[in-house]
Amino acid sequence: QENRPVPELNPGEVLIKMNSVGICGSDIHYWQHGKLGDFVVKKPMVLGHEGSGTVTKVGCGVTHVKQGDKVAIEPGVPRETDDFVKSGRYNLSPTIFFCATPPDDGLMCRFYVHKAKYVYKLPDCVSFEEGAMAEPLSVGIHACRRGRVKLGCKVLILGAGPIGLCCLLIAKAMGAAQIVVCDLSCERLEKAKQMGANATLKVEKPFPCPLEFAQKLKGLLGCEGAEVTIECSGAEFCMQIGIYATRSGGTLVLVGVGAATANLPMLNGSLREVDVRGLFRYTNTWPVALALMGTKKVDVKPMITNRFPIEQAAEAFETARKGTAIKVIVQCEAQCQHN
Amino acid sequence: QENRPVPELNPGEVLIKMNSVGICGSDIHYWQHGKLGDFVVKKPMVLGHEGSGTVTKVGCGVTHVKQGDKVAIEPGVPRETDDFVKSGRYNLSPTIFFCATPPDDGLMCRFYVHKAKYVYKLPDCVSFEEGAMAEPLSVGIHACRRGRVKLGCKVLILGAGPIGLCCLLIAKAMGAAQIVVCDLSCERLEKAKQMGANATLKVEKPFPCPLEFAQKLKGLLGCEGAEVTIECSGAEFCMQIGIYATRSGGTLVLVGVGAATANLPMLNGSLREVDVRGLFRYTNTWPVALALMGTKKVDVKPMITNRFPIEQAAEAFETARKGTAIKVIVQCEAQCQHN
Amino acid sequence: QENRPVPELNPGEVLIKMNSVGICGSDIHYWQHGKLGDFVVKKPMVLGHEGSGTVTKVGCGVTHVKQGDKVAIEPGVPRETDDFVKSGRYNLSPTIFFCATPPDDGLMCRFYVHKAKYVYKLPDCVSFEEGAMAEPLSVGIHACRRGRVKLGCKVLILGAGPIGLCCLLIAKAMGAAQIVVCDLSCERLEKAKQMGANATLKVEKPFPCPLEFAQKLKGLLGCEGAEVTIECSGAEFCMQIGIYATRSGGTLVLVGVGAATANLPMLNGSLREVDVRGLFRYTNTWPVALALMGTKKVDVKPMITNRFPIEQAAEAFETARKGTAIKVIVQCEAQCQHN
Amino acid sequence: QENRPVPELNPGEVLIKMNSVGICGSDIHYWQHGKLGDFVVKKPMVLGHEGSGTVTKVGCGVTHVKQGDKVAIEPGVPRETDDFVKSGRYNLSPTIFFCATPPDDGLMCRFYVHKAKYVYKLPDCVSFEEGAMAEPLSVGIHACRRGRVKLGCKVLILGAGPIGLCCLLIAKAMGAAQIVVCDLSCERLEKAKQMGANATLKVEKPFPCPLEFAQKLKGLLGCEGAEVTIECSGAEFCMQIGIYATRSGGTLVLVGVGAATANLPMLNGSLREVDVRGLFRYTNTWPVALALMGTKKVDVKPMITNRFPIEQAAEAFETARKGTAIKVIVQCEAQCQHN
Repeated sequence: QENRPVPELNPGEVLIKMNSVGICGSDIHYWQHGKLGDFVVKKPMVLGHEGSGTVTKVGCGVTHVKQGDKVAIEPGVPRETDDFVKSGRYNLSPTIFFCATPPDDGLMCRFYVHKAKYVYKLPDCVSFEEGAMAEPLSVGIHACRRGRVKLGCKVLILGAGPIGLCCLLIAKAMGAAQIVVCDLSCERLEKAKQMGANATLKVEKPFPCPLEFAQKLKGLLGCEGAEVTIECSGAEFCMQIGIYATRSGGTLVLVGVGAATANLPMLNGSLREVDVRGLFRYTNTWPVALALMGTKKVDVKPMITNRFPIEQAAEAFETARKGTAIKVIVQCEAQCQHN
Repeated sequence: QENRPVPELNPGEVLIKMNSVGICGSDIHYWQHGKLGDFVVKKPMVLGHEGSGTVTKVGCGVTHVKQGDKVAIEPGVPRETDDFVKSGRYNLSPTIFFCATPPDDGLMCRFYVHKAKYVYKLPDCVSFEEGAMAEPLSVGIHACRRGRVKLGCKVLILGAGPIGLCCLLIAKAMGAAQIVVCDLSCERLEKAKQMGANATLKVEKPFPCPLEFAQKLKGLLGCEGAEVTIECSGAEFCMQIGIYATRSGGTLVLVGVGAATANLPMLNGSLREVDVRGLFRYTNTWPVALALMGTKKVDVKPMITNRFPIEQAAEAFETARKGTAIKVIVQCEAQCQHN
Repeated sequence: QENRPVPELNPGEVLIKMNSVGICGSDIHYWQHGKLGDFVVKKPMVLGHEGSGTVTKVGCGVTHVKQGDKVAIEPGVPRETDDFVKSGRYNLSPTIFFCATPPDDGLMCRFYVHKAKYVYKLPDCVSFEEGAMAEPLSVGIHACRRGRVKLGCKVLILGAGPIGLCCLLIAKAMGAAQIVVCDLSCERLEKAKQMGANATLKVEKPFPCPLEFAQKLKGLLGCEGAEVTIECSGAEFCMQIGIYATRSGGTLVLVGVGAATANLPMLNGSLREVDVRGLFRYTNTWPVALALMGTKKVDVKPMITNRFPIEQAAEAFETARKGTAIKVIVQCEAQCQHN
Repeated sequence: QENRPVPELNPGEVLIKMNSVGICGSDIHYWQHGKLGDFVVKKPMVLGHEGSGTVTKVGCGVTHVKQGDKVAIEPGVPRETDDFVKSGRYNLSPTIFFCATPPDDGLMCRFYVHKAKYVYKLPDCVSFEEGAMAEPLSVGIHACRRGRVKLGCKVLILGAGPIGLCCLLIAKAMGAAQIVVCDLSCERLEKAKQMGANATLKVEKPFPCPLEFAQKLKGLLGCEGAEVTIECSGAEFCMQIGIYATRSGGTLVLVGVGAATANLPMLNGSLREVDVRGLFRYTNTWPVALALMGTKKVDVKPMITNRFPIEQAAEAFETARKGTAIKVIVQCEAQCQHN
């Protein structure tokens, strides 16, 4: 983080005084390793893609937000009107701008310029911190949509980090009748229970036989397994139990980013028509995420565990890296208002 | 209601000692007029299709329920494996058996025989009365499915009788962020508010201009209107405002049964791609309805306003006919257990 | 049509030397009446929204087409990135630019400027005239998508004008096993047969009883009716038979633009779960339309019946107005190349 | 094959004099190895599940077919009305009866009894042999439905055996604009070309780098890859190229039955939202398959390469086993009518 001059606004842009920016696993990865998969940081890059702030200036033609509005920022903005964009799947557009994915700068700074159409006014009762949480919540929304979570269904969530917990909140909001959560950590499972999981199961290391572990999960879920399993760990073991524990005709969603390849019991899944669907970020989620928080249908506040002013960003990253926090928020305003 | 001999059981059938049976508008119609649309009562017919009871005997091959189980009954059972049945839309099968639709007998009796596969065990915490409510709740589920109610969406419900209220409960459970309910009756609107409506609007008679009334509703919903409108009154006026008040690309579900024809602003709806979708009963709803009540995601108890023993069935029907009750339950057991 | 100066190109725009522009019913309407529904012509407006031509200049940043490319033009270009656009339904965006819908100018001129991303290179074997036909074909694609035409299904098309015939071509290409077409005109029905209709039925005036006429159609379709009915006439009578003749669980698509209101047998349709779905133009159709013509899966040439140079535009409109032509093409190049 | 007594008919059953039965890979497997995956042959079992014949007797209550009707047989008949059956996915019902899957007997005999509702009258112009082909065609239909093949899309088919060729026929009938087929065998690729493939690519052994091979396929398909890839070989190599060669947002369908586990580039597929969907047999396909053959939209005859009378069944299996035939038909009637 460094000071940069306030840029001029092009038509359709807004200038935002940043308030709260959450730290995501990918931020930590770039911070530590300078790269993530094919994305390599080649010049100093501002981190952060989970953010909220206050509109301080609007460019020509901007009407849906105005100076003084508190807003959440959707970090991905398509650059080209290609077929993905035209058909509503702009997350798949190969030329999309995305905050803090190299070489595009992120949000962890004092002032930030964004396309106004990807900036959303916070409902009155939604704080800046919650506004920043619209990003991980968006992953949960997209995951549950990809998984086709339906009213009354049974959902299995593998991994109880911030994304797993967001999937839990959203699956509940979509009407899932029963949600079982797995993790290696008792603390995380405890948090999952507090946030609405109907049952939890701790995974012990060394990993047990996936088929046997899946049987245990089915015991918790009811004998036919989960209609939707959401894998948030990226571990091959979890992808394997994800296939076994999903009911015939159900869906396994791969959210966790793991190794390039995985050895999976595909035949078991194929012959039972278990769909395997990955995801990449999200589309069309911010209005939903904000509406859910604005109407108190979803409460993300239990996930916000740590806060640091931007001057202590290094400490914030260090805390996030250690993995005991759930969500660490960096406060970018000089005198940060939590409201 | 009269005493009838306990029948022999064929393979796959169960004998049920009936406990609770709700009275539906169609029951009242048959009771008063002896017909409903094309369906005419030609011989004495047992009424009631919203029911629950206790399994007292199981036929050959029945394994998923056993003697002593408390169960809810799905009243429609397909007779033929036609294309509708094969493709999962068995409600549309023209030869379906349906309780209390002439000439098929209904549930309002001491003992009743049904196909076991259309009988569902109540979760432990679900009472007989709630079990009977699985039927109107099923209409709500099917309506919200037909309407494609989605997480975070805005829903307009026209009519706050039992079906409208069930749609309200289900739309909320599916994650609707904002629900507006209309009715002629202040009492019903009050009940809707208690059960979770975000806003209500009373319709006054004589009916106002539909377009203007729809504008008022849009004011309550946010300017673009409802993503899903569920029409539960059967009134032409409501169908008209249903089209106007639905957002472009949204869905109007016609649940209410009204006149054979309606004069509607189809061009307005067509050019905005508002889908108009009716419904007929339901398919694949009982497991969902029971799971929702069993996990306390949906509470139907506020809708149960009146109870009568079967000996006072006439009084029960009279009460239901007057329209001040929401749901009237007829208790069929000699000493009825409410549990 | 008049001469206008060649405009400067903004980034992302292309200049097109127009070649072929089809005349649509809406063009005739504006030409005769100066308005269509809520759209009123208030200043001289260039007509035409079915067009093709040659790229003669490209603006900054345009890479997918280049000077000399023969292209088809999608006439609707969203102006704002609103929720409709973000979710892939840009046709519903209220601020969309659309050729020859007032106050936006159309294509019937020598040179025309358009957003490059809504301009599509013609496959080698597709002529300019066919390229212009991508527009009505797009209506057919959108209609068959809205109707969910599926492999092996039965389709009823009401109205055999250019749009009805395009629906016929597309329904066949999607795998409809049987297509029945109705119209008032024997000539049009003859054309429908030539283009692949399995059966046709002439409507006589005065209109017969809709229910009886629908029974006749069901006789041709097989007793349960059409899985998909596509209404292309706008006549209330056809909308009525569209409901009656559609199979339970099927879809009636309203394409024809008729009176503001219609008196329809909604109860019959509702209780059989016949979905009624209108449409507004199209989204994401040009690549498909061009691929179908480029691979000879669809042949639009039999629909092009008349051609006039742009100097005889008045005569072209007069011919189109009379209704004996199917599609009239206005040739905009000085020495028009049919290729 | 042996002589067995003609059984008595229960209500809803028909007796069929078998005419044509195709040999499938699974038949060969049971014939050679006595088992396939978890299914083990424990007593003498009649093989064959692709069959057609003539109704010779109908049980009580059968009305949609009558004595003398030529029919095709759907080999899977659900035994229980479970949730899969109720929701239209009866192929996933764990207790389903299925011809020639142990312990259920198959069709390769003189006379066979089946549930009438899973027996379909052949259209007039469809021969017995074509009727038997409704089974592999059903796999193609189910695969293309699972893959969501759409009008104008690009399809990649890996494997040009009978199932791959059926997928080719169906993808074309659904409106795919471009179809590329891969196989190890030049003869099979030649057949694929004759049957409508737009391009073919031979796979050489030892298998090349999957990513590079996928690039070659993308070159044939257009640079973004296939919207739908249908894997019919069961080879891990093909599953790998199936992921790489599928366009972002597309679908890979796993039809081929291979090893229990596979090592796959899941991350590449996940981050591009390539859905991986297996399949198990089919549901609701016979009426479609017969309609397509009856209206000449699909021609399966080029796939029928060899015929043997039932007395030479051993030779028929030997021919099928060698892999040079495409489809071998066993003629079960004493004096077989080819019609």
